[in-house]
Amino acid sequence: MFSIKRLAEQAKQASFEVSSLSAEKKQRTLNDMANALRENQLTIIQQNEVDLCNAKDNQLSDAMIDRLRLTPDRIKDIAQAIEQIASQDDPVGKIKHAYQLENGLNVQKVSIPLGVIAMIYESRPNVTADAAALCFKAGNAIILKGGKEALHSNIAIGKSLHQALKENGISEGAIAIVSDPDRKHMAELLQLNQLVDLIIPRGGEGLIRYVSENSRIPVIQHYKGVCHLYIDKDSDINKAINILVNGKVQRPGVCNALETLVIHKDMVEKHIKEIADSLEKNHVSIHACEKTLNHFNNAKLATDADYDAEYLALEIAVKQVDSFDEAVEHILKYTSNHTEVIVTENEKTASRFIKKINSSVVMVNASSRFSDGGQLGLGAEIGISTSKLHAYGPMGVESLTTEKFVVLGDGQIRE
Amino acid sequence: MFSIKRLAEQAKQASFEVSSLSAEKKQRTLNDMANALRENQLTIIQQNEVDLCNAKDNQLSDAMIDRLRLTPDRIKDIAQAIEQIASQDDPVGKIKHAYQLENGLNVQKVSIPLGVIAMIYESRPNVTADAAALCFKAGNAIILKGGKEALHSNIAIGKSLHQALKENGISEGAIAIVSDPDRKHMAELLQLNQLVDLIIPRGGEGLIRYVSENSRIPVIQHYKGVCHLYIDKDSDINKAINILVNGKVQRPGVCNALETLVIHKDMVEKHIKEIADSLEKNHVSIHACEKTLNHFNNAKLATDADYDAEYLALEIAVKQVDSFDEAVEHILKYTSNHTEVIVTENEKTASRFIKKINSSVVMVNASSRFSDGGQLGLGAEIGISTSKLHAYGPMGVESLTTEKFVVLGDGQIRE
Repeated sequence: MFSIKRLAEQAKQASFEVSSLSAEKKQRTLNDMANALRENQLTIIQQNEVDLCNAKDNQLSDAMIDRLRLTPDRIKDIAQAIEQIASQDDPVGKIKHAYQLENGLNVQKVSIPLGVIAMIYESRPNVTADAAALCFKAGNAIILKGGKEALHSNIAIGKSLHQALKENGISEGAIAIVSDPDRKHMAELLQLNQLVDLIIPRGGEGLIRYVSENSRIPVIQHYKGVCHLYIDKDSDINKAINILVNGKVQRPGVCNALETLVIHKDMVEKHIKEIADSLEKNHVSIHACEKTLNHFNNAKLATDADYDAEYLALEIAVKQVDSFDEAVEHILKYTSNHTEVIVTENEKTASRFIKKINSSVVMVNASSRFSDGGQLGLGAEIGISTSKLHAYGPMGVESLTTEKFVVLGDGQIRE
Repeated sequence: MFSIKRLAEQAKQASFEVSSLSAEKKQRTLNDMANALRENQLTIIQQNEVDLCNAKDNQLSDAMIDRLRLTPDRIKDIAQAIEQIASQDDPVGKIKHAYQLENGLNVQKVSIPLGVIAMIYESRPNVTADAAALCFKAGNAIILKGGKEALHSNIAIGKSLHQALKENGISEGAIAIVSDPDRKHMAELLQLNQLVDLIIPRGGEGLIRYVSENSRIPVIQHYKGVCHLYIDKDSDINKAINILVNGKVQRPGVCNALETLVIHKDMVEKHIKEIADSLEKNHVSIHACEKTLNHFNNAKLATDADYDAEYLALEIAVKQVDSFDEAVEHILKYTSNHTEVIVTENEKTASRFIKKINSSVVMVNASSRFSDGGQLGLGAEIGISTSKLHAYGPMGVESLTTEKFVVLGDGQIRE
């Protein structure tokens, strides 16, 4: 019978082994994982077909079915992503600081793996491979609890990963797949704080809230992205409109899309027609404040709830402000700590914005759509944190490590 | 009527103000806090007297009364500690990494305050001033929930801190004192995850467990310190005995004292008599494994519970091992992730120990008693973390910050 506790114990045991593997061995094993996925492509697609059939029987939405589907091209992409992770710098064993104390003790802070990470996610089989590769690269064992809709796909992918572990003489516990979809195992997993060091949930707000409220293990939280664009009085209108349209329109369903436009009254006076045109041309619905309402065709009056909303659709809230300070005040009130952007040519104003706004990503004259681990050069991304503890913003492999103190002496004792 | 939610809202509001104070202003305000404590010494001692009277009426232990007591000397020490914190490097606004992407975006990781930190602690009034100063230095607002036994002392210290804030035009909410000792406020505080970013509990294991299990806010955990000393076969016996006696005897009641001696069989063969003498001379009770039991006078046979125990007294568990690997295995099984020490002259063995053991502090040829923020050069210490998330080991001001991404562009949008 499946036991989540036994699985977690195996992961904990394997974590000691994985934590001291050499950089070369991890790299070789990751490349073997990519090759194994390519070799076993047919089996993986067959198992994915089982999930797809069940999904249709259970009348899942087209969007969900699309995310669930694996094709030869998608498997190629997954394998390439693993190779890309393999080629990154090894994040373990780096000396981050070093100093000597007066008594001769040498102190170092050295990066180490976190230990055992549990990933709880919905029905995207690519997360199984991505998360496993990122955690392994950082010397951690991982427990993968995917959505039940992707169970057959996840098990098939897991078998390929295990094949590579085996070829390199590493315990399978290093990548532990929860093979029984019963929800009770998740509840039990969240209590295993002696075995698991970190929980990363990925999915809707409901899942993240359930995990956060029921876990005895630290949780990386990412609730929502209510990203703001502030168009300052000293901004370049062309940059402003490009960044507005790119942020709202390019892919409205993702967390780094814009949800609110905050705009200085001088810019409203001079350029609101162009701004309104650019949004309306792209079929964006507008929720406007009283002062700007009449500048739009068919805008609705924005409510407090609108400024709090993550639309994830072609909708935007608009707020006119009299000053930079009022813009900052609005953003601080409604921020989700994800990403905020200012467009300005005034360097002093840009500096003040950077100083006043402590969201996880603060941008000057660039699209919020760059707020993503891949785009910011972290390589693959395991998730994004909007709570400030441990990691803040997009998380790459480095976020899956911590630092220990190493103290080198010659017999020193304390007086 | 006292409302913890209102207090937390004031702290949140003040946190925006404190987060962008200049380094100079924070330094000046901290020095003013130290001066205000000295000026108000008499009032503080009078209020402390009220707490001491109540403590005697309530028959608190002598040790607790001693920790509660404030004297002119202790107030001088508290003021000096604040001045020491004032003089440290400012941890906010530092650029930790910076790089440019191919599309011309400049990316920086910049240190920022965490926001609002709540400190929950027992009846040590010095913690009120220390914690307030550390959090303020790192640009955070703090909520101070001290033990009810120290209430009058804490309020009096708080008044001095507020006086300094006021002199510098800073909101009192930056150092928010919970002035009503009713336990229900703590329960409510732990639910305020929209207002508070981090909880740091300091006190007994019961308090820490209660906070961890009931908080919706991330908690820095420090359960216990079961610190191990491993005397390797290639060790210098004089260093080994010095480090053993210092670690066990100098101050047995603290978390960085030794609790278990792991010793290689070759060293038992050659030196067990000297080792036993050194412990017995210092009145240390011994819980020995089967193999070493007969080498001690009056030792008891060690149980599994002994290897798991934080004695906090003149008691030690002893375990003979046949090899380095067996020593590591024993330590990994019983570690509390606090501090482990190896004594060895063999550099390869030292390196292997450092690599295999991922406790928060790993030491070679030095006493475990150095595992402390002050001793390791961090300046004052807000606490110690034995969970790996966010901070690991002794925590100074830097641990009270996080990092945001700052992205500087020139109109870049995503293709």
